[in-house]
Amino acid sequence: MTVSGTISELHTRLTATRARKTAGTIGFVPTMGALHAGHGALIARARAECDHVVVSIFVNPLQFDRSTDFDRYPQTLETDLAMCRSHGVDLVFAPASAEMYRTLPTTRIDVGRLGNHLCGRHRSGHFDGVGLVVLKLFNLVQPHVAYFGEKDAQQLAIIRRIVTDLSVPVRIVGVSTVRDPDGLALSSRNQHLSPAERALATALYEALEAARRAIGEGTTDVAAIVSDALRQVPQVADLRVEYLEVVDPVELQPVDVVSDTVLVAGALWVGTTRLIDNVLCEPAGDTP
Amino acid sequence: MTVSGTISELHTRLTATRARKTAGTIGFVPTMGALHAGHGALIARARAECDHVVVSIFVNPLQFDRSTDFDRYPQTLETDLAMCRSHGVDLVFAPASAEMYRTLPTTRIDVGRLGNHLCGRHRSGHFDGVGLVVLKLFNLVQPHVAYFGEKDAQQLAIIRRIVTDLSVPVRIVGVSTVRDPDGLALSSRNQHLSPAERALATALYEALEAARRAIGEGTTDVAAIVSDALRQVPQVADLRVEYLEVVDPVELQPVDVVSDTVLVAGALWVGTTRLIDNVLCEPAGDTP
Repeated sequence: MTVSGTISELHTRLTATRARKTAGTIGFVPTMGALHAGHGALIARARAECDHVVVSIFVNPLQFDRSTDFDRYPQTLETDLAMCRSHGVDLVFAPASAEMYRTLPTTRIDVGRLGNHLCGRHRSGHFDGVGLVVLKLFNLVQPHVAYFGEKDAQQLAIIRRIVTDLSVPVRIVGVSTVRDPDGLALSSRNQHLSPAERALATALYEALEAARRAIGEGTTDVAAIVSDALRQVPQVADLRVEYLEVVDPVELQPVDVVSDTVLVAGALWVGTTRLIDNVLCEPAGDTP
Repeated sequence: MTVSGTISELHTRLTATRARKTAGTIGFVPTMGALHAGHGALIARARAECDHVVVSIFVNPLQFDRSTDFDRYPQTLETDLAMCRSHGVDLVFAPASAEMYRTLPTTRIDVGRLGNHLCGRHRSGHFDGVGLVVLKLFNLVQPHVAYFGEKDAQQLAIIRRIVTDLSVPVRIVGVSTVRDPDGLALSSRNQHLSPAERALATALYEALEAARRAIGEGTTDVAAIVSDALRQVPQVADLRVEYLEVVDPVELQPVDVVSDTVLVAGALWVGTTRLIDNVLCEPAGDTP
Protein backbone atom coordinates (compact mmCIF):
# COMPACT_ATOMS: atom_id res chain seq x y z
CA MET A 1 0.00 0.00 0.00
CA THR A 2 1.36 3.39 -0.98
CA VAL A 3 0.68 6.42 1.20
CA SER A 4 1.02 9.73 -0.60
CA GLY A 5 0.85 13.19 0.92
CA THR A 6 1.45 15.19 -2.24
CA ILE A 7 -0.50 15.67 -5.43
CA SER A 8 2.59 15.08 -7.57
CA GLU A 9 3.29 11.70 -5.93
CA LEU A 10 -0.39 10.77 -6.27
CA HIS A 11 -0.16 11.55 -9.98
CA THR A 12 3.05 9.59 -10.42
CA ARG A 13 1.47 6.54 -8.79
CA LEU A 14 -1.80 6.80 -10.68
CA THR A 15 -0.03 7.32 -14.00
CA ALA A 16 1.95 4.15 -13.35
CA THR A 17 -1.27 2.30 -12.45
CA ARG A 18 -3.05 3.45 -15.60
CA ALA A 19 -0.05 2.59 -17.79
CA ARG A 20 -0.16 -1.08 -16.74
CA LYS A 21 -1.55 -3.48 -19.31
CA THR A 22 -3.96 -4.75 -16.65
CA ALA A 23 -4.88 -1.24 -15.50
CA GLY A 24 -8.58 -1.99 -15.03
CA THR A 25 -10.88 0.17 -12.97
CA ILE A 26 -10.06 2.57 -10.16
CA GLY A 27 -12.46 2.64 -7.20
CA PHE A 28 -12.30 5.63 -4.89
CA VAL A 29 -13.42 6.14 -1.30
CA PRO A 30 -13.06 9.78 -0.17
CA THR A 31 -12.98 10.09 3.64
CA MET A 32 -12.09 12.52 6.39
CA GLY A 33 -10.26 9.74 8.27
CA ALA A 34 -11.25 8.52 11.74
CA LEU A 35 -12.28 5.38 9.87
CA HIS A 36 -14.86 3.02 11.31
CA ALA A 37 -16.73 -0.05 10.05
CA GLY A 38 -18.95 2.20 7.89
CA HIS A 39 -15.88 3.30 5.93
CA GLY A 40 -14.80 -0.34 6.03
CA ALA A 41 -17.97 -1.29 4.16
CA LEU A 42 -17.23 1.35 1.48
CA ILE A 43 -13.67 0.13 1.06
CA ALA A 44 -14.72 -3.53 1.01
CA ARG A 45 -17.25 -2.76 -1.72
CA ALA A 46 -14.63 -0.89 -3.75
CA ARG A 47 -12.17 -3.76 -3.24
CA ALA A 48 -14.76 -6.29 -4.43
CA GLU A 49 -15.75 -4.28 -7.52
CA CYS A 50 -12.57 -2.56 -8.73
CA ASP A 51 -9.05 -3.50 -9.76
CA HIS A 52 -7.42 -0.65 -7.90
CA VAL A 53 -8.65 1.01 -4.69
CA VAL A 54 -7.75 4.56 -3.68
CA VAL A 55 -8.78 6.04 -0.31
CA SER A 56 -8.34 9.72 0.47
CA ILE A 57 -8.03 10.98 4.03
CA PHE A 58 -8.51 14.72 4.17
CA VAL A 59 -10.33 16.77 6.77
CA ASN A 60 -11.59 19.48 4.44
CA PRO A 61 -11.64 22.82 6.27
CA LEU A 62 -13.99 24.33 3.66
CA GLN A 63 -16.93 22.13 4.69
CA PHE A 64 -16.92 22.94 8.41
CA ASP A 65 -19.38 25.60 9.49
CA ARG A 66 -18.08 25.59 13.08
CA SER A 67 -14.35 25.90 13.77
CA THR A 68 -14.79 24.00 17.06
CA ASP A 69 -16.12 21.00 15.10
CA PHE A 70 -13.12 21.21 12.73
CA ASP A 71 -10.63 21.59 15.60
CA ARG A 72 -11.90 18.56 17.47
CA TYR A 73 -12.61 16.35 14.45
CA PRO A 74 -10.88 13.04 15.32
CA GLN A 75 -7.52 12.49 13.62
CA THR A 76 -6.34 8.88 13.82
CA LEU A 77 -4.01 8.47 10.84
CA GLU A 78 -2.04 5.46 12.07
CA THR A 79 -5.11 3.32 12.83
CA ASP A 80 -6.72 4.58 9.59
CA LEU A 81 -3.71 3.37 7.60
CA ALA A 82 -3.77 0.03 9.41
CA MET A 83 -7.42 -0.38 8.49
CA CYS A 84 -6.73 0.52 4.85
CA ARG A 85 -3.90 -2.00 4.79
CA SER A 86 -6.10 -4.74 6.24
CA HIS A 87 -8.74 -4.02 3.58
CA GLY A 88 -6.23 -4.32 0.75
CA VAL A 89 -6.25 -0.64 -0.27
CA ASP A 90 -3.67 0.12 -2.96
CA LEU A 91 -3.16 3.83 -2.47
CA VAL A 92 -3.97 6.26 0.33
CA PHE A 93 -3.92 9.97 -0.52
CA ALA A 94 -3.56 11.97 2.69
CA PRO A 95 -2.64 15.54 1.78
CA ALA A 96 -2.15 18.45 4.14
CA SER A 97 -4.56 21.33 3.71
CA ALA A 98 -1.80 23.52 2.24
CA GLU A 99 -1.19 20.87 -0.42
CA MET A 100 -4.86 20.68 -1.42
CA TYR A 101 -5.41 24.44 -1.31
CA ARG A 102 -2.13 26.06 -2.38
CA THR A 103 -4.21 29.15 -2.98
CA LEU A 104 -7.60 29.60 -1.37
CA PRO A 105 -10.28 28.82 -3.98
CA THR A 106 -12.45 31.67 -5.21
CA THR A 107 -14.69 29.21 -7.09
CA ARG A 108 -17.76 28.08 -5.20
CA ILE A 109 -19.93 25.09 -6.07
CA ASP A 110 -23.46 26.16 -5.24
CA VAL A 111 -25.54 23.00 -5.01
CA GLY A 112 -28.83 24.83 -5.46
CA ARG A 113 -32.12 23.72 -4.00
CA LEU A 114 -30.82 20.30 -2.95
CA GLY A 115 -28.92 22.15 -0.22
CA ASN A 116 -31.88 24.17 1.06
CA HIS A 117 -33.26 21.71 3.62
CA LEU A 118 -32.04 19.10 6.14
CA CYS A 119 -28.40 19.69 7.10
CA GLY A 120 -28.03 22.33 4.40
CA ARG A 121 -30.36 24.67 6.24
CA HIS A 122 -28.39 24.35 9.45
CA ARG A 123 -24.80 24.19 8.20
CA SER A 124 -24.20 27.27 6.08
CA GLY A 125 -21.82 26.60 3.19
CA HIS A 126 -21.25 22.97 4.24
CA PHE A 127 -22.34 21.36 0.99
CA ASP A 128 -20.63 23.99 -1.15
CA GLY A 129 -17.40 22.92 0.57
CA VAL A 130 -18.26 19.24 0.10
CA GLY A 131 -19.03 19.80 -3.58
CA LEU A 132 -15.75 21.60 -4.16
CA VAL A 133 -13.52 19.07 -2.41
CA VAL A 134 -15.27 16.07 -3.96
CA LEU A 135 -14.95 17.54 -7.47
CA LYS A 136 -11.30 18.35 -6.76
CA LEU A 137 -10.61 14.84 -5.47
CA PHE A 138 -12.39 13.33 -8.48
CA ASN A 139 -10.19 15.43 -10.76
CA LEU A 140 -7.04 14.44 -8.87
CA VAL A 141 -7.79 10.70 -8.68
CA GLN A 142 -9.94 10.29 -11.82
CA PRO A 143 -11.67 7.17 -10.54
CA HIS A 144 -14.15 5.07 -12.51
CA VAL A 145 -16.37 4.52 -9.45
CA ALA A 146 -16.68 6.38 -6.15
CA TYR A 147 -18.32 5.09 -2.97
CA PHE A 148 -20.30 7.13 -0.45
CA GLY A 149 -22.26 6.13 2.66
CA GLU A 150 -26.03 6.43 2.66
CA LYS A 151 -25.81 7.78 6.21
CA ASP A 152 -24.93 11.12 4.62
CA ALA A 153 -28.00 10.99 2.40
CA GLN A 154 -28.05 14.67 1.49
CA GLN A 155 -24.37 14.61 0.61
CA LEU A 156 -24.94 11.54 -1.58
CA ALA A 157 -27.92 13.10 -3.39
CA ILE A 158 -25.98 16.33 -3.95
CA ILE A 159 -22.91 14.53 -5.29
CA ARG A 160 -25.11 12.52 -7.65
CA ARG A 161 -26.64 15.79 -8.88
CA ILE A 162 -23.30 17.56 -9.36
CA VAL A 163 -21.99 14.54 -11.26
CA THR A 164 -25.05 14.61 -13.53
CA ASP A 165 -25.07 18.40 -13.98
CA LEU A 166 -21.37 18.55 -14.83
CA SER A 167 -21.20 15.18 -16.64
CA VAL A 168 -18.38 14.07 -14.34
CA PRO A 169 -17.07 10.74 -15.71
CA VAL A 170 -17.48 8.74 -12.51
CA ARG A 171 -20.13 6.28 -11.33
CA ILE A 172 -21.47 7.04 -7.85
CA VAL A 173 -22.34 4.10 -5.59
CA GLY A 174 -24.23 4.55 -2.33
CA VAL A 175 -23.54 1.98 0.41
CA SER A 176 -25.96 1.10 3.23
CA THR A 177 -25.44 2.67 6.63
CA VAL A 178 -23.59 0.46 9.10
CA ARG A 179 -25.12 0.48 12.61
CA ASP A 180 -24.23 -0.68 16.08
CA PRO A 181 -26.46 -3.52 17.33
CA ASP A 182 -28.75 -1.01 19.07
CA GLY A 183 -29.28 0.91 15.81
CA LEU A 184 -26.91 3.85 16.25
CA ALA A 185 -25.40 4.74 12.88
CA LEU A 186 -21.62 4.56 12.92
CA SER A 187 -19.99 7.98 12.78
CA SER A 188 -16.55 9.33 13.48
CA ARG A 189 -18.23 11.76 15.85
CA ASN A 190 -19.59 8.90 18.03
CA GLN A 191 -16.20 8.78 19.76
CA HIS A 192 -16.98 12.17 21.30
CA LEU A 193 -19.92 10.66 23.27
CA SER A 194 -19.62 9.91 26.99
CA PRO A 195 -21.16 6.56 28.09
CA ALA A 196 -24.29 8.40 29.25
CA GLU A 197 -24.54 10.29 25.96
CA ARG A 198 -23.95 7.09 24.01
CA ALA A 199 -26.98 5.56 25.76
CA LEU A 200 -29.14 8.54 24.78
CA ALA A 201 -27.84 8.71 21.20
CA THR A 202 -30.05 5.87 19.91
CA ALA A 203 -33.06 8.20 20.26
CA LEU A 204 -32.49 9.49 16.72
CA TYR A 205 -32.63 6.03 15.15
CA GLU A 206 -35.67 5.19 17.27
CA ALA A 207 -37.45 8.32 16.07
CA LEU A 208 -36.67 7.46 12.45
CA GLU A 209 -37.84 3.88 12.93
CA ALA A 210 -41.07 5.16 14.46
CA ALA A 211 -41.59 7.28 11.33
CA ARG A 212 -40.89 4.30 9.11
CA ARG A 213 -43.41 2.17 11.04
CA ALA A 214 -46.07 4.87 10.84
CA ILE A 215 -45.53 5.31 7.09
CA GLY A 216 -45.52 1.56 6.55
CA GLU A 217 -48.79 1.27 8.45
CA GLY A 218 -50.45 3.82 6.23
CA THR A 219 -50.01 7.20 7.93
CA THR A 220 -49.54 9.78 5.20
CA ASP A 221 -49.79 13.09 7.07
CA VAL A 222 -46.20 14.24 7.58
CA ALA A 223 -47.01 16.52 10.52
CA ALA A 224 -48.49 13.53 12.38
CA ILE A 225 -45.57 11.29 11.41
CA VAL A 226 -43.01 13.81 12.64
CA SER A 227 -44.74 14.62 15.94
CA ASP A 228 -45.14 10.91 16.64
CA ALA A 229 -41.47 10.27 15.83
CA LEU A 230 -40.31 13.10 18.05
CA ARG A 231 -42.02 11.43 21.03
CA GLN A 232 -39.22 8.82 20.83
CA VAL A 233 -36.71 11.45 21.91
CA PRO A 234 -36.51 11.71 25.72
CA GLN A 235 -37.09 15.22 27.07
CA VAL A 236 -33.69 15.60 28.71
CA ALA A 237 -31.30 18.51 28.77
CA ASP A 238 -28.59 16.61 26.86
CA LEU A 239 -30.74 15.98 23.78
CA ARG A 240 -31.86 18.54 21.23
CA VAL A 241 -33.40 17.68 17.88
CA GLU A 242 -31.99 20.06 15.26
CA TYR A 243 -34.38 18.85 12.59
CA LEU A 244 -36.46 15.87 11.62
CA GLU A 245 -37.79 16.23 8.09
CA VAL A 246 -39.57 14.19 5.47
CA VAL A 247 -38.40 14.91 1.92
CA ASP A 248 -38.43 13.33 -1.50
CA PRO A 249 -35.22 11.33 -1.93
CA VAL A 250 -34.00 12.98 -5.17
CA GLU A 251 -34.75 16.69 -4.94
CA LEU A 252 -34.73 16.70 -1.11
CA GLN A 253 -37.77 18.97 -0.98
CA PRO A 254 -40.23 18.75 1.95
CA VAL A 255 -43.26 16.53 1.52
CA ASP A 256 -46.58 17.21 3.29
CA VAL A 257 -48.35 13.98 2.40
CA VAL A 258 -46.56 10.69 1.83
CA SER A 259 -47.56 9.17 -1.50
CA ASP A 260 -44.24 7.75 -2.70
CA THR A 261 -40.88 6.74 -1.28
CA VAL A 262 -39.62 9.41 1.12
CA LEU A 263 -36.43 10.11 2.98
CA VAL A 264 -36.89 10.73 6.69
CA ALA A 265 -33.78 12.41 8.03
CA GLY A 266 -32.79 14.03 11.27
CA ALA A 267 -30.00 15.68 13.21
CA LEU A 268 -29.75 15.27 16.97
CA TRP A 269 -27.45 17.13 19.32
CA VAL A 270 -26.25 14.86 22.13
CA GLY A 271 -24.46 17.18 24.51
CA THR A 272 -22.01 19.04 22.26
CA THR A 273 -21.97 16.35 19.58
CA ARG A 274 -24.15 16.55 16.50
CA LEU A 275 -25.29 13.26 14.97
CA ILE A 276 -27.27 12.63 11.79
CA ASP A 277 -29.16 9.66 10.45
CA ASN A 278 -31.90 8.84 7.93
CA VAL A 279 -34.14 6.07 6.67
CA LEU A 280 -35.78 5.57 3.30
CA CYS A 281 -39.48 4.77 3.77
CA GLU A 282 -41.97 3.07 1.46
CA PRO A 283 -45.62 3.99 1.90
CA ALA A 284 -48.10 1.26 2.81
CA GLY A 285 -49.15 -0.98 -0.07
CA ASP A 286 -46.11 -0.16 -2.20
CA THR A 287 -44.77 -3.70 -1.88
CA PRO A 288 -47.03 -6.50 -3.10
CA MET B 1 -13.85 14.27 -39.63
CA THR B 2 -16.60 12.87 -37.44
CA VAL B 3 -19.54 15.07 -36.47
CA SER B 4 -21.38 13.92 -33.37
CA GLY B 5 -24.59 15.33 -31.95
CA THR B 6 -24.94 12.98 -29.01
CA ILE B 7 -22.92 12.41 -25.87
CA SER B 8 -22.99 8.64 -26.35
CA GLU B 9 -21.52 8.90 -29.85
CA LEU B 10 -18.91 11.37 -28.60
CA HIS B 11 -17.92 8.84 -25.94
CA THR B 12 -17.79 5.96 -28.43
CA ARG B 13 -15.48 7.97 -30.68
CA LEU B 14 -13.25 9.21 -27.88
CA THR B 15 -12.99 5.76 -26.33
CA ALA B 16 -11.84 4.43 -29.69
CA THR B 17 -9.34 7.29 -29.96
CA ARG B 18 -7.93 6.65 -26.50
CA ALA B 19 -7.69 2.90 -27.09
CA ARG B 20 -5.38 3.37 -30.06
CA LYS B 21 -1.74 2.54 -29.46
CA THR B 22 -0.83 5.96 -30.79
CA ALA B 23 -3.56 7.70 -28.81
CA GLY B 24 -1.45 10.73 -27.90
CA THR B 25 -2.90 14.01 -26.72
CA ILE B 26 -6.36 15.43 -27.23
CA GLY B 27 -6.61 19.16 -27.91
CA PHE B 28 -9.99 20.81 -27.43
CA VAL B 29 -11.48 24.05 -28.76
CA PRO B 30 -14.89 24.82 -27.23
CA THR B 31 -16.88 27.27 -29.37
CA MET B 32 -20.38 28.59 -29.84
CA GLY B 33 -20.03 28.22 -33.61
CA ALA B 34 -20.22 31.12 -36.08
CA LEU B 35 -16.54 30.42 -36.53
CA HIS B 36 -14.17 33.10 -37.79
CA ALA B 37 -10.41 33.42 -38.18
CA GLY B 38 -10.06 33.87 -34.40
CA HIS B 39 -11.45 30.39 -33.88
CA GLY B 40 -9.27 29.31 -36.80
CA ALA B 41 -6.20 30.41 -34.85
CA LEU B 42 -7.32 28.33 -31.84
CA ILE B 43 -7.92 25.26 -33.99
CA ALA B 44 -4.64 25.70 -35.87
CA ARG B 45 -2.76 25.91 -32.59
CA ALA B 46 -4.50 22.75 -31.31
CA ARG B 47 -3.75 20.98 -34.61
CA ALA B 48 -0.07 21.95 -34.36
CA GLU B 49 0.31 20.85 -30.74
CA CYS B 50 -1.97 17.81 -30.31
CA ASP B 51 -2.47 14.40 -31.90
CA HIS B 52 -6.24 14.64 -31.91
CA VAL B 53 -8.35 17.81 -32.22
CA VAL B 54 -11.91 18.09 -30.91
CA VAL B 55 -14.05 21.19 -31.53
CA SER B 56 -17.39 21.67 -29.79
CA ILE B 57 -20.11 23.86 -31.28
CA PHE B 58 -22.74 24.64 -28.69
CA VAL B 59 -24.59 27.89 -28.10
CA ASN B 60 -24.99 27.53 -24.34
CA PRO B 61 -28.31 29.05 -23.24
CA LEU B 62 -27.13 29.24 -19.60
CA GLN B 63 -24.55 31.94 -20.33
CA PHE B 64 -26.83 34.41 -22.07
CA ASP B 65 -28.15 37.19 -19.86
CA ARG B 66 -30.41 38.56 -22.65
CA SER B 67 -32.72 36.22 -24.54
CA THR B 68 -32.58 38.53 -27.59
CA ASP B 69 -28.82 38.00 -27.75
CA PHE B 70 -29.32 34.22 -27.54
CA ASP B 71 -32.08 34.25 -30.15
CA ARG B 72 -30.06 36.17 -32.70
CA TYR B 73 -26.68 34.55 -32.00
CA PRO B 74 -25.43 33.55 -35.46
CA GLN B 75 -25.84 29.86 -36.32
CA THR B 76 -23.78 28.80 -39.33
CA LEU B 77 -23.23 25.07 -38.83
CA GLU B 78 -22.47 24.16 -42.43
CA THR B 79 -19.75 26.78 -42.91
CA ASP B 80 -18.46 25.97 -39.40
CA LEU B 81 -18.06 22.31 -40.33
CA ALA B 82 -16.34 23.26 -43.60
CA MET B 83 -13.88 25.38 -41.64
CA CYS B 84 -13.24 22.55 -39.18
CA ARG B 85 -12.66 20.16 -42.07
CA SER B 86 -10.23 22.53 -43.73
CA HIS B 87 -8.30 22.85 -40.46
CA GLY B 88 -7.98 19.07 -40.08
CA VAL B 89 -10.27 18.74 -37.06
CA ASP B 90 -10.84 15.09 -36.10
CA LEU B 91 -14.11 15.35 -34.21
CA VAL B 92 -16.82 18.00 -33.95
CA PHE B 93 -19.23 17.73 -31.04
CA ALA B 94 -22.39 19.73 -31.85
CA PRO B 95 -25.10 18.73 -29.37
CA ALA B 96 -28.58 20.14 -29.12
CA SER B 97 -29.40 21.92 -25.89
CA ALA B 98 -31.69 19.08 -24.81
CA GLU B 99 -28.78 16.66 -25.20
CA MET B 100 -26.45 18.74 -23.07
CA TYR B 101 -29.05 19.56 -20.41
CA ARG B 102 -31.36 16.54 -20.20
CA THR B 103 -32.42 17.96 -16.86
CA LEU B 104 -31.86 21.61 -16.02
CA PRO B 105 -28.80 21.84 -13.74
CA THR B 106 -29.35 22.90 -10.14
CA THR B 107 -25.59 23.15 -9.60
CA ARG B 108 -24.13 26.60 -10.08
CA ILE B 109 -20.46 27.42 -10.55
CA ASP B 110 -19.95 30.71 -8.74
CA VAL B 111 -16.69 32.14 -10.00
CA GLY B 112 -16.27 34.48 -7.05
CA ARG B 113 -14.53 37.82 -7.16
CA LEU B 114 -13.06 37.24 -10.63
CA GLY B 115 -16.59 37.76 -11.93
CA ASN B 116 -17.28 40.98 -10.04
CA HIS B 117 -15.93 43.49 -12.58
CA LEU B 118 -15.70 44.00 -16.35
CA CYS B 119 -18.32 41.93 -18.22
CA GLY B 120 -19.26 40.11 -15.02
CA ARG B 121 -20.72 43.28 -13.54
CA HIS B 122 -22.90 43.86 -16.59
CA ARG B 123 -23.93 40.34 -17.57
CA SER B 124 -25.58 38.76 -14.54
CA GLY B 125 -24.89 35.03 -14.29
CA HIS B 126 -22.93 34.96 -17.55
CA PHE B 127 -19.70 33.54 -16.15
CA ASP B 128 -21.53 31.07 -13.90
CA GLY B 129 -23.04 29.68 -17.09
CA VAL B 130 -19.66 29.71 -18.85
CA GLY B 131 -18.04 27.93 -15.90
CA LEU B 132 -20.69 25.24 -15.86
CA VAL B 133 -20.64 24.48 -19.58
CA VAL B 134 -16.86 24.54 -19.82
CA LEU B 135 -16.52 22.13 -16.87
CA LYS B 136 -19.19 19.93 -18.42
CA LEU B 137 -17.47 19.95 -21.82
CA PHE B 138 -14.11 19.19 -20.16
CA ASN B 139 -15.72 16.22 -18.41
CA LEU B 140 -17.32 15.01 -21.64
CA VAL B 141 -14.24 15.38 -23.84
CA GLN B 142 -11.49 14.90 -21.23
CA PRO B 143 -8.89 16.78 -23.27
CA HIS B 144 -5.24 17.19 -22.32
CA VAL B 145 -5.15 20.79 -23.54
CA ALA B 146 -7.90 23.35 -24.19
CA TYR B 147 -7.58 26.55 -26.21
CA PHE B 148 -9.32 29.86 -25.52
CA GLY B 149 -9.05 33.26 -27.16
CA GLU B 150 -7.46 36.14 -25.26
CA LYS B 151 -10.20 38.41 -26.63
CA ASP B 152 -12.42 36.99 -23.88
CA ALA B 153 -9.84 37.86 -21.23
CA GLN B 154 -12.17 37.61 -18.25
CA GLN B 155 -13.48 34.24 -19.42
CA LEU B 156 -9.91 32.98 -19.85
CA ALA B 157 -8.84 34.19 -16.38
CA ILE B 158 -11.94 32.63 -14.81
CA ILE B 159 -11.44 29.30 -16.55
CA ARG B 160 -7.81 29.25 -15.44
CA ARG B 161 -8.97 29.85 -11.87
CA ILE B 162 -11.69 27.19 -11.93
CA VAL B 163 -9.19 24.70 -13.35
CA THR B 164 -6.75 25.52 -10.53
CA ASP B 165 -9.38 25.56 -7.78
CA LEU B 166 -10.87 22.23 -8.83
CA SER B 167 -7.59 20.63 -10.03
CA VAL B 168 -9.15 19.94 -13.42
CA PRO B 169 -6.65 17.78 -15.36
CA VAL B 170 -6.41 20.01 -18.44
CA ARG B 171 -3.83 22.56 -19.55
CA ILE B 172 -5.33 25.90 -20.56
CA VAL B 173 -3.73 27.78 -23.46
CA GLY B 174 -4.64 31.37 -24.29
CA VAL B 175 -4.29 32.41 -27.92
CA SER B 176 -3.75 35.99 -29.12
CA THR B 177 -6.72 37.96 -30.39
CA VAL B 178 -7.07 38.01 -34.18
CA ARG B 179 -7.93 41.44 -35.60
CA ASP B 180 -9.08 42.95 -38.84
CA PRO B 181 -6.45 45.20 -40.46
CA ASP B 182 -8.04 48.27 -38.82
CA GLY B 183 -7.74 46.70 -35.37
CA LEU B 184 -11.29 45.45 -34.79
CA ALA B 185 -11.14 42.20 -32.84
CA LEU B 186 -12.84 39.35 -34.70
CA SER B 187 -16.11 38.33 -33.10
CA SER B 188 -19.11 36.30 -34.21
CA ARG B 189 -21.20 39.32 -33.29
CA ASN B 190 -19.40 41.52 -35.87
CA GLN B 191 -21.72 40.09 -38.52
CA HIS B 192 -24.59 41.97 -36.88
CA LEU B 193 -22.94 45.32 -37.75
CA SER B 194 -24.21 47.46 -40.61
CA PRO B 195 -21.46 49.06 -42.78
CA ALA B 196 -21.87 52.33 -40.88
CA GLU B 197 -21.69 50.54 -37.53
CA ARG B 198 -18.66 48.55 -38.70
CA ALA B 199 -16.86 51.84 -39.41
CA LEU B 200 -17.62 53.08 -35.89
CA ALA B 201 -16.74 49.79 -34.17
CA THR B 202 -12.98 50.37 -34.26
CA ALA B 203 -13.44 53.06 -31.58
CA LEU B 204 -13.06 50.42 -28.84
CA TYR B 205 -9.69 49.23 -30.09
CA GLU B 206 -8.56 52.82 -30.56
CA ALA B 207 -9.53 53.63 -26.98
CA LEU B 208 -7.61 50.60 -25.69
CA GLU B 209 -4.59 51.50 -27.80
CA ALA B 210 -4.68 55.04 -26.43
CA ALA B 211 -4.61 53.58 -22.92
CA ARG B 212 -1.69 51.34 -23.85
CA ARG B 213 0.24 54.32 -25.26
CA ALA B 214 -0.43 56.40 -22.16
CA ILE B 215 0.69 53.60 -19.85
CA GLY B 216 3.76 52.90 -21.98
CA GLU B 217 4.66 56.59 -21.83
CA GLY B 218 4.55 56.61 -18.04
CA THR B 219 1.05 57.69 -17.09
CA THR B 220 0.09 55.74 -13.95
CA ASP B 221 -3.12 57.45 -12.83
CA VAL B 222 -5.92 55.18 -14.01
CA ALA B 223 -8.58 57.90 -13.93
CA ALA B 224 -6.48 59.97 -16.35
CA ILE B 225 -5.74 56.96 -18.55
CA VAL B 226 -9.42 56.05 -18.81
CA SER B 227 -10.70 59.56 -19.48
CA ASP B 228 -8.02 60.00 -22.14
CA ALA B 229 -8.92 56.67 -23.74
CA LEU B 230 -12.63 57.49 -23.77
CA ARG B 231 -11.91 60.57 -25.89
CA GLN B 232 -11.21 58.11 -28.74
CA VAL B 233 -14.87 57.14 -28.81
CA PRO B 234 -16.91 59.50 -31.03
CA GLN B 235 -19.87 61.12 -29.28
CA VAL B 236 -22.53 59.66 -31.57
CA ALA B 237 -25.89 58.13 -30.78
CA ASP B 238 -24.89 54.69 -32.10
CA LEU B 239 -21.98 54.25 -29.68
CA ARG B 240 -22.22 53.67 -25.95
CA VAL B 241 -19.31 52.56 -23.79
CA GLU B 242 -20.59 49.98 -21.29
CA TYR B 243 -17.32 49.94 -19.37
CA LEU B 244 -13.65 50.64 -19.79
CA GLU B 245 -11.68 49.36 -16.84
CA VAL B 246 -8.10 48.81 -15.77
CA VAL B 247 -7.60 45.68 -13.66
CA ASP B 248 -4.83 43.33 -12.60
CA PRO B 249 -4.66 40.47 -15.11
CA VAL B 250 -5.02 37.58 -12.61
CA GLU B 251 -7.58 38.60 -9.99
CA LEU B 252 -9.31 41.08 -12.32
CA GLN B 253 -9.63 43.64 -9.54
CA PRO B 254 -9.61 47.37 -10.35
CA VAL B 255 -6.31 49.21 -10.17
CA ASP B 256 -6.04 52.91 -9.29
CA VAL B 257 -2.37 53.39 -10.05
CA VAL B 258 -0.49 51.38 -12.68
CA SER B 259 2.63 49.84 -11.17
CA ASP B 260 2.68 46.45 -12.88
CA THR B 261 1.19 44.75 -15.94
CA VAL B 262 -2.50 45.61 -16.22
CA LEU B 263 -5.39 44.49 -18.35
CA VAL B 264 -7.33 47.31 -19.99
CA ALA B 265 -10.70 45.97 -21.09
CA GLY B 266 -13.87 47.47 -22.44
CA ALA B 267 -17.30 46.80 -23.81
CA LEU B 268 -18.85 49.01 -26.47
CA TRP B 269 -22.40 48.98 -27.71
CA VAL B 270 -22.55 49.71 -31.43
CA GLY B 271 -26.23 50.09 -32.16
CA THR B 272 -27.79 46.94 -30.68
CA THR B 273 -24.56 44.95 -30.85
CA ARG B 274 -22.26 44.60 -27.87
CA LEU B 275 -18.54 44.19 -28.59
CA ILE B 276 -15.68 43.55 -26.18
CA ASP B 277 -11.93 43.84 -26.44
CA ASN B 278 -8.86 44.20 -24.23
CA VAL B 279 -5.14 44.82 -24.27
CA LEU B 280 -2.45 43.81 -21.80
CA CYS B 281 -0.29 46.82 -20.93
CA GLU B 282 3.21 47.05 -19.50
CA PRO B 283 4.08 50.16 -17.50
CA ALA B 284 6.92 52.38 -18.72
CA GLY B 285 10.40 51.08 -17.94
CA ASP B 286 9.29 47.48 -17.48
CA THR B 287 11.11 46.33 -20.57
CA PRO B 288 14.89 46.89 -20.60
